[in-house]
Amino acid sequence: MADSNLYQFNPELDLMFERIIDVPREPVWTAWTTPELLKQWFCPLPWLTVECEIDLRPGGIFRTTMQSPEGKRHPGTGCYLEVIPNERLVWTSALEAGFRPAKPIVTKTEKSCDDFAFTAVISLAPHVNGTQYTAHVMHATKEARMQHEAMGFQEGWGKALDQLVAMIKSDQRSVG
Amino acid sequence: MADSNLYQFNPELDLMFERIIDVPREPVWTAWTTPELLKQWFCPLPWLTVECEIDLRPGGIFRTTMQSPEGKRHPGTGCYLEVIPNERLVWTSALEAGFRPAKPIVTKTEKSCDDFAFTAVISLAPHVNGTQYTAHVMHATKEARMQHEAMGFQEGWGKALDQLVAMIKSDQRSVG
Repeated sequence: MADSNLYQFNPELDLMFERIIDVPREPVWTAWTTPELLKQWFCPLPWLTVECEIDLRPGGIFRTTMQSPEGKRHPGTGCYLEVIPNERLVWTSALEAGFRPAKPIVTKTEKSCDDFAFTAVISLAPHVNGTQYTAHVMHATKEARMQHEAMGFQEGWGKALDQLVAMIKSDQRSVG
Repeated sequence: MADSNLYQFNPELDLMFERIIDVPREPVWTAWTTPELLKQWFCPLPWLTVECEIDLRPGGIFRTTMQSPEGKRHPGTGCYLEVIPNERLVWTSALEAGFRPAKPIVTKTEKSCDDFAFTAVISLAPHVNGTQYTAHVMHATKEARMQHEAMGFQEGWGKALDQLVAMIKSDQRSVG
């Protein structure tokens, strides 16, 4: 149903991570959509992804629990919005399973209530050297975008992708 | 992609409006998805719907402006999530066009930041007397559900549906 005009990049509100990776897009899709695989790469080490639940359809849940090196658990829940195998995966933290609105994670200050919801659009396109990998992450406000950026968005997504590619290559070696 | 298990009714968080109406479901669908028709019935009089924008696809915008009898305008923006013609229409106020998170409408108090986002699931089923019309409205919190209920949810949806059915019958008479 969606066309390329649906996802508009807004530099004030959005973040973008792009890289060409030298693996085909099919195993990348599988790594994003299989809980036992996602747990192996989703969190940059020494953080771990200790739980993962995937109901791969629009309205289905995408739930993970990340664990800090000190053992503190950080649960996160999202809802898939668009699922086009090997091509595009879209989910948001603004909704829970069945498209129910998520309780906002608001940071109350004297001046305002800030929310940090985001929607992520992962796109995979064939490339002469493998796969063009793009993550477009949308926020409601400039403050949320800046907060996400300051958390180390580029570095975090980069390290996670390194782990994903290494996992695929390791699997290919073990198969070959 | 969705099946009947996707939309779970939670009595603590949700509201439900159900009625059998003596018109076929096709014109009801058309009345929900055509701006010039929606403006004729969507708001219980003497309130008016003075603007309506519809991009009928998952991720597309559903925007209305309601106007009070005193002339005050109340814009509202939502995003379609599921579109099954003549059967089910789902949208949420938690997202904007292109699935971007909406800026939460938070009510800041000394104690908390409350949000009032909702997701609406309009279902139309054939019935021996016409159409079984159901509106399932989901919230993130009990407080949001109670607030929506206190705004006159049942009465408001009932009056709007009266206007919708009257419009369809009027059109049928003018056509016949």
